[in-house]
Amino acid sequence: MESKSSAQGKPLHLSSESRQIQARVGSPVHRVSMGDAWSRQVHPDIEIERRQPSFDVERLTNILDGGAQKTALRRKVESIIHSDPVFSLKDNYFMTQNEHYEAGIKKQFYLRMLAQQLGWLEDSQELLYAYRTLAGDLALGLHHVFQKALRSLGSEEQIAKWDRLCKEFQIIATYAQTELGHGTYLQGLETQATYDADTQEFVVHSPTITATKWWPGDLGRTATHALVQAQLICSGARQGMHAFIVPIRSLQDHTLLPGITAGDIGPKMGFEHIDNGFLRLDHVLPDGTYIKLGTAQSNYLSMVVTRVELLLTEILPQLQKACVIAIRYSVVRRQSQLRPSGPEAQVLDFQTQQQKLFPQLATAYAFHFLASSLLEFFHQSYRTILDRDFSLLPELHALSSGLKAMVSDFCTEGTEQCRRACGGHGYSKLSGLPTLLTRVTPSCTYEGENTVLYLQMARFLVKSYLQAQTSPGSTKRSLPQSVAYLTAPDLARCPAQGAADFLHPELYTSAWAHVARRLIKDSVHHLQALLQSGADRHEAWNQTTVIHLQAAKAHCYYVTVKSFAEALEKLDNEPAVQQALKRLCDLFALHGILSNTGDFLHDGFLSGAQVDAARTAYLDLLLLIRKDAISLTDAFDFTDQCLNSALGCYDGNVYERLFHWAQKSPTNTQGNPAYEKYIRPLLQSWRSKL
Amino acid sequence: MESKSSAQGKPLHLSSESRQIQARVGSPVHRVSMGDAWSRQVHPDIEIERRQPSFDVERLTNILDGGAQKTALRRKVESIIHSDPVFSLKDNYFMTQNEHYEAGIKKQFYLRMLAQQLGWLEDSQELLYAYRTLAGDLALGLHHVFQKALRSLGSEEQIAKWDRLCKEFQIIATYAQTELGHGTYLQGLETQATYDADTQEFVVHSPTITATKWWPGDLGRTATHALVQAQLICSGARQGMHAFIVPIRSLQDHTLLPGITAGDIGPKMGFEHIDNGFLRLDHVLPDGTYIKLGTAQSNYLSMVVTRVELLLTEILPQLQKACVIAIRYSVVRRQSQLRPSGPEAQVLDFQTQQQKLFPQLATAYAFHFLASSLLEFFHQSYRTILDRDFSLLPELHALSSGLKAMVSDFCTEGTEQCRRACGGHGYSKLSGLPTLLTRVTPSCTYEGENTVLYLQMARFLVKSYLQAQTSPGSTKRSLPQSVAYLTAPDLARCPAQGAADFLHPELYTSAWAHVARRLIKDSVHHLQALLQSGADRHEAWNQTTVIHLQAAKAHCYYVTVKSFAEALEKLDNEPAVQQALKRLCDLFALHGILSNTGDFLHDGFLSGAQVDAARTAYLDLLLLIRKDAISLTDAFDFTDQCLNSALGCYDGNVYERLFHWAQKSPTNTQGNPAYEKYIRPLLQSWRSKL
Repeated sequence: MESKSSAQGKPLHLSSESRQIQARVGSPVHRVSMGDAWSRQVHPDIEIERRQPSFDVERLTNILDGGAQKTALRRKVESIIHSDPVFSLKDNYFMTQNEHYEAGIKKQFYLRMLAQQLGWLEDSQELLYAYRTLAGDLALGLHHVFQKALRSLGSEEQIAKWDRLCKEFQIIATYAQTELGHGTYLQGLETQATYDADTQEFVVHSPTITATKWWPGDLGRTATHALVQAQLICSGARQGMHAFIVPIRSLQDHTLLPGITAGDIGPKMGFEHIDNGFLRLDHVLPDGTYIKLGTAQSNYLSMVVTRVELLLTEILPQLQKACVIAIRYSVVRRQSQLRPSGPEAQVLDFQTQQQKLFPQLATAYAFHFLASSLLEFFHQSYRTILDRDFSLLPELHALSSGLKAMVSDFCTEGTEQCRRACGGHGYSKLSGLPTLLTRVTPSCTYEGENTVLYLQMARFLVKSYLQAQTSPGSTKRSLPQSVAYLTAPDLARCPAQGAADFLHPELYTSAWAHVARRLIKDSVHHLQALLQSGADRHEAWNQTTVIHLQAAKAHCYYVTVKSFAEALEKLDNEPAVQQALKRLCDLFALHGILSNTGDFLHDGFLSGAQVDAARTAYLDLLLLIRKDAISLTDAFDFTDQCLNSALGCYDGNVYERLFHWAQKSPTNTQGNPAYEKYIRPLLQSWRSKL
Repeated sequence: MESKSSAQGKPLHLSSESRQIQARVGSPVHRVSMGDAWSRQVHPDIEIERRQPSFDVERLTNILDGGAQKTALRRKVESIIHSDPVFSLKDNYFMTQNEHYEAGIKKQFYLRMLAQQLGWLEDSQELLYAYRTLAGDLALGLHHVFQKALRSLGSEEQIAKWDRLCKEFQIIATYAQTELGHGTYLQGLETQATYDADTQEFVVHSPTITATKWWPGDLGRTATHALVQAQLICSGARQGMHAFIVPIRSLQDHTLLPGITAGDIGPKMGFEHIDNGFLRLDHVLPDGTYIKLGTAQSNYLSMVVTRVELLLTEILPQLQKACVIAIRYSVVRRQSQLRPSGPEAQVLDFQTQQQKLFPQLATAYAFHFLASSLLEFFHQSYRTILDRDFSLLPELHALSSGLKAMVSDFCTEGTEQCRRACGGHGYSKLSGLPTLLTRVTPSCTYEGENTVLYLQMARFLVKSYLQAQTSPGSTKRSLPQSVAYLTAPDLARCPAQGAADFLHPELYTSAWAHVARRLIKDSVHHLQALLQSGADRHEAWNQTTVIHLQAAKAHCYYVTVKSFAEALEKLDNEPAVQQALKRLCDLFALHGILSNTGDFLHDGFLSGAQVDAARTAYLDLLLLIRKDAISLTDAFDFTDQCLNSALGCYDGNVYERLFHWAQKSPTNTQGNPAYEKYIRPLLQSWRSKL
């Protein structure tokens, strides 16, 4: 009640700058921007959803952006990008792999020109927004990874030389680590760098086929230089992994240099615009001598940053877009009847459709706040690390590992749920959903395979648990923040007496803490029992990994619920937004409980009756969130061009767009040689039998 | 012990016909058939896995095929198909959508020629094996669906006329039901067929854009005729759905006929070889008058057959192939160390990898026996239905609905699990896994969207439960077989006292029966409580669908466990095979329990300690199945050509094949126009700044 009247009474509270942008860019014309004849009118089924929002959508957008000024700047960048046809994605679904690659290079080339022209500096907010707008369609992303690796690993001299070459694009660089036969386990890499004491040179070499570098982006057809990770061998002894800058293509004519075999690794599920490549080195001399690997600490730190940035830039946006598309489509799509004599019902009014989509929407918000708080924690820690206090590193490493695994798992699963919730049309590339899926799913593998990452988190949990056990009196201060609950007071039974009790963040946060603690304890006990029975350390770990995984996942869920609840507390001055988000937080926590009821029932923490009450609370939430669903997806503020979806445009004109986009397919615009070759002969073959 | 010696003692017991084929085709040369220089030698890591099988792999293959003679016939057909380069799939991963389409038409054309030449009749076992071999790469699949619909719906006169035209391919036909705005809910279809009493003609028309037929296969660029489902309108009154045969393309020159707008619906996630199409009708006269819809019973029957056939021909093989590929790769792939000083470990020795793959393997076997027994049940029922006894139909309909939903859900999820278990290489199309995934995932939507299908099963369960309640004395006889457990004696507590007790099929089958019964009861009570509180029937159903879904899923799991356990009982004379399969049956049942522990703990049927014991039993099974893993996947007996996977070939030469296949990609064989256009200008732009 309160929120409704507040939203009606003061519809928009924008800063003056934001208002100016709004006036200039125009709203909602800003969003309805496909330039189609039918897009002047918003579909009535979606228009009605926006009439009485329970909260101010623009305010929520500002919160997500980190302030109204940032929203305005983002929109300004988007409108610049969208106004240039060179950046258009409209032919994306009709291209071959070669065409995707060329388009990716072309867009990156013009973006460089544009940035130079407009004075957008590297790492500027403008360029970051431009990347966000063109996410998944730009080539040369590894150039930046090379730079980051160089800055964290190289000497000052090396940085000075190569960073300038990179900035001016005198070279195009990539980062070559993964090999055909070796991925996550770095020590297993086979590429060799042998130090020749006579010539005082390093010779880099691929001794076997499995040593072939495989997967590095931009390597297949583009990069001129690669940072190659190799086993250093001095006087016949292995010295571990070191990095070498190897020139691979001529700066004159782009041909492969002597001793280099390289090319593209071929077709993939997605990422067709990137020329992931292979590289074989036949006794090659690197340029710029070798680069010492940094300390374990600085390596950790660079991984932590990369992973947390990935969450916000590469992984989460795919799920957010999938939610926008599927939920918009679900208010326009009608099917079957909910009332005997009424019209066909909007599919979003079916409980099962809400059950498919709203947990994904809640997850998308939960991860936004999780990743934001993680980034903030990282920035806070950065100072202490610069002061050479590395005490926070194990926790940062564990959090970035476990939460990267969780976020990429859930975002992949959620994107696929959204895709399937669109029925047959979700299988059409024109829906945009297959592309979102093929973009998000490799995040479960790259930058650390998820199972390996969860188990790194698990190792940290085992250590933390043992630390809490050994010094129970003094640990409360010394245990890292995210695992402090291991020594906090715990209830043996959940105090909830009815459905309403499950809508209290303290209640469900402590329920998740209870379960995570029990599972960690369980995993430690299983490990110790095996060790005590004489099992080898490696073997004991391996034989308990399924149990450790379960514990790590519960801990990650707890951390996410906690961070969402904390983010809510900061929104006390935005009661309408807070109320809408609280429902999502409740839903996220309860959906997790109901998907893992066994973990809560196992020791009697919850009773069967309490599980039923939690389910009642959960089902009631679906109905409440239904009313805000379109506003909550509008708030992500993705432009139609960026969504590039026939099902998910702001105006809801789903069928017209699907019909018209299909006409442009090469299957319709090119001829059908199969007719003369096979169809006509087949249709006329019966005559020969006469 | 017993099984080992039996396998060693009498290695192969083939029929003489099978031996002849074996000798001719050669084994294992039959399997190692990519014709590559390196494939003469089997990779030692996979060779060692085959040295001491615990059972006779050939016997299991025969069991899966339904007898040694069938195995021999299948291999004969496969060798014929594979010996003709026109059927080769080797360029599949490098094609555009147009090229896939042409290849699909071409293969179907040559298969027709081959069948004529060799005298393979329609519906012959040979042709079925040929379809299996070329599954997913043949066009014109809807022609057969048209014929089946005609045979079940048409008059004798109509069947006589059109069936001959179809058989001789004088026409190419498709089945047009789904519309742009309407799918599963048939009554919502908008295409109209108006009867004009003056001319005594039907006029078929698409009144709106949402009435456009959308998705029918072979419609976009190929079919000459379509069976169009339309609302019959007589004297202004709607008479429900009827089917009309509409000519859409000229038999002379293949141009669209007057009043017809048709084309391809554009790019999809997969099925690129099929021209799924759209069709708009502007007051068109159908050919061959109209076809009355059959009785509800005959419609049911035709759906039941189609769905059960789909399980075995379209859905399950994708998961089986994914298991073969991922498990073979996992014994060759090495990563990290399990022993401090040993070599890198085979990834299949990691517990987490076993946990990813073995439940999928168990599922693949479980569904084979499920679908086989379902098909048998259908054939038994066919007679009673021909005698116009329709009492079995509701059960057949419910089983075919619910189990189609379960099988397609699990096979999709399992295929994706297998794909991800291959790490980065699973993202390469050359692994074959992405194509398996994009082929299996639409099965969750086509032939009935899975949520809708589960809920049809749920309606049957509600009715059965109420029937059991109303006449508790006499129901045991009258309740359909698959729900007879609703009135069988039930235990309140599981009697298992330790891990070993969970390896008894009776124990876990009755545990699943207990849980299914409790959830069905729970769903009925929630529904009745809402109805008694005055809710409308539709609304009460909608507000309990999430609960009904849960019940239907548990029932389907119970049915699957039961059918697997029954299939095992029939293998008493094959103790070694029986033992290997029993472990998979145990694993399937326990994996289901451990994935849904909450359902078993909810009412105290299992205690926390019992869940832990089940987990111990489950983890121990993983180690036992590890030893049989390669044999169990070899037994599916897919040829290398059919798998078309760089990771999954019989010889295990993963890396060589991946490397060589990548060289053939158009990204390597075609030039790089992006260099002159963008890369060179970018690399040289710094000079202009000097």
